[in-house]
Amino acid sequence: MAWGLGLLKALKYKDKELFVLDQRLLPHRVEWLCCTDATCVAKVIREMAVRGAPAIGVAAAYGYLLAAHTAVVRGDDLTVATLGPAYRDLAEARPTAVNLVWALDRMVACLRSAEALEGGQRLRRLIGEAQSIEARDVEANLAMSQLGAGLLEPGSERNWVLTHCNTGALATAGQGTALGVVRDAWAAGRLEGVYVDETRPWLQGSRLTAWELQQEAIPYRLICDSAAASVLATGRVGWVIVGADRVAANGDVANKIGTYALAVLARHHGVKFMVVAPRSTIDRDCADGGAIEIEQRSAFEVSEIAGEPVAPEGADVYNPAFDVTPAGLIDALVTEAGVVRHPNRAGIARLFD
Amino acid sequence: MAWGLGLLKALKYKDKELFVLDQRLLPHRVEWLCCTDATCVAKVIREMAVRGAPAIGVAAAYGYLLAAHTAVVRGDDLTVATLGPAYRDLAEARPTAVNLVWALDRMVACLRSAEALEGGQRLRRLIGEAQSIEARDVEANLAMSQLGAGLLEPGSERNWVLTHCNTGALATAGQGTALGVVRDAWAAGRLEGVYVDETRPWLQGSRLTAWELQQEAIPYRLICDSAAASVLATGRVGWVIVGADRVAANGDVANKIGTYALAVLARHHGVKFMVVAPRSTIDRDCADGGAIEIEQRSAFEVSEIAGEPVAPEGADVYNPAFDVTPAGLIDALVTEAGVVRHPNRAGIARLFD
Repeated sequence: MAWGLGLLKALKYKDKELFVLDQRLLPHRVEWLCCTDATCVAKVIREMAVRGAPAIGVAAAYGYLLAAHTAVVRGDDLTVATLGPAYRDLAEARPTAVNLVWALDRMVACLRSAEALEGGQRLRRLIGEAQSIEARDVEANLAMSQLGAGLLEPGSERNWVLTHCNTGALATAGQGTALGVVRDAWAAGRLEGVYVDETRPWLQGSRLTAWELQQEAIPYRLICDSAAASVLATGRVGWVIVGADRVAANGDVANKIGTYALAVLARHHGVKFMVVAPRSTIDRDCADGGAIEIEQRSAFEVSEIAGEPVAPEGADVYNPAFDVTPAGLIDALVTEAGVVRHPNRAGIARLFD
Repeated sequence: MAWGLGLLKALKYKDKELFVLDQRLLPHRVEWLCCTDATCVAKVIREMAVRGAPAIGVAAAYGYLLAAHTAVVRGDDLTVATLGPAYRDLAEARPTAVNLVWALDRMVACLRSAEALEGGQRLRRLIGEAQSIEARDVEANLAMSQLGAGLLEPGSERNWVLTHCNTGALATAGQGTALGVVRDAWAAGRLEGVYVDETRPWLQGSRLTAWELQQEAIPYRLICDSAAASVLATGRVGWVIVGADRVAANGDVANKIGTYALAVLARHHGVKFMVVAPRSTIDRDCADGGAIEIEQRSAFEVSEIAGEPVAPEGADVYNPAFDVTPAGLIDALVTEAGVVRHPNRAGIARLFD
């Protein structure tokens, strides 16, 4: 495991405080926000100070824990009902990534199973559960990174990969999903370099992924999203590797806007397409991609840049934050429980056997 | 003809001065630059104060004319040799759009054919030729707009189009190429609205195309380039309509980076793909797209936005300004001399019969 980023974390929890690295200011300013209640955590998720499906899952778990601390301080009984408003606030912070609700539901189940215990013990169980959710993500990252890197053919002439958005240490609790695969593939000598889409409108590629790669001295080239097709046409790229915000039961994948375009372009150019996501991203209650709610975000994310307008006043903007890639365009879904080639309903179900 | 933009021009020539609308400041500031020599014109082309293949062709013709004025003032003999340095300066300002060299070569041929005349008459011939190049572009725009609009099926449910970059009044001497088609299609009631790609890194879509459409009250929705695939998947879009910077003899098309991706995505979704370009954009000496020089532009266009860095210092950036769309992905090439369906070498040649 070649993870050199011991200090790079999106979140740090300590003593009733959740510190959140404000990713909106990266790569030029490293500032931490401190949340002491669930309302604050919901806000930093909503406003994307922290983003990335696994990271917001972990953040939500700690947000729920902070709500429990608040209840204890107030002298409220520590029950699922008492924490209901915090649950809803956190769960509704962003709609598409299912990890948010998955993590909250784990916290709820933990609390429910501890109902017979006294208050202090319940709280300790919740602390343990939040830490376990975080640790589980770290481990899942490592397992996925190895499995994904193993799919890259050693000695291939197509020894560059292309990635989209940020799926690294900043998007998870560990070394990343798709970017974790990149890290392990680089360490294993299976990779020459990485094309990084800038990923409009938030520029997670230029601001976050390029920054992570630069810190690890992994060669990369930053491109506009619209240049990906030209890059794939060169024949240098073997795999497009992305993360996911929600995987439906049939293998359809919701991920950062632009992912679907890359999947179509990869198929057109004979380039393989890999999705790397922990099982917590799989929503077995969601039959297919059509059932996934796609978050619509504000016009100003597109019509303004760095606070300056770049479009005429009153411009009509369509700004979906995610798109859906049909399972049929995916060559491999990499989870901590194994790789599903050509994902479909049966393949997804086997991950949970 | 429904062109309401009587006042919107990229260029105005009058009395030995070429006024250039500084498109880098749009849509928020309308400022004109004034060039009185060829060096200035080469600079405004190179630095993209004026852009768009037809517009830079017209600008180059007037730049050559300004060089002739300069020569006369200096008492130099008005010959092709005397104006050689100005020719080269203008021709090398940008490499991909062939209209630049096409217009300059017309000016050279005009001057050569006037060699037997005295100096004042030669100058008048050059003035006439530059004005003719401009007028010809205006007419070509009108002819292409009608032909292209005629390809849109009336009453279709797929009554939105998607366009990329800016191909309107700001990119030409007239009402535009692809955006001219949009104007006429809207006037003819064949269009419900236009999806406008923002077109990173220069944002010609948000800054220029949205502005032109807004002024004419043609409904549009501005999207990130990476959202085009989602939009095409909705089934609302019948045609992707773009311009061109150079068309090879076999019908391959060099155009703004991202065009090739749209062509692949359009084919995948059963959406038609139309290229609108005057014959001056066709380079019959260029066998195919592989022979077209693709301009590589500065890293800072991607790594900075509005002067603010958005990528880590020293980021390695790949910033091609154009890409090549193979002829096989193009359903219709619209020129002022007619429409070529499924362009190939024979179809292109017939345009010049």
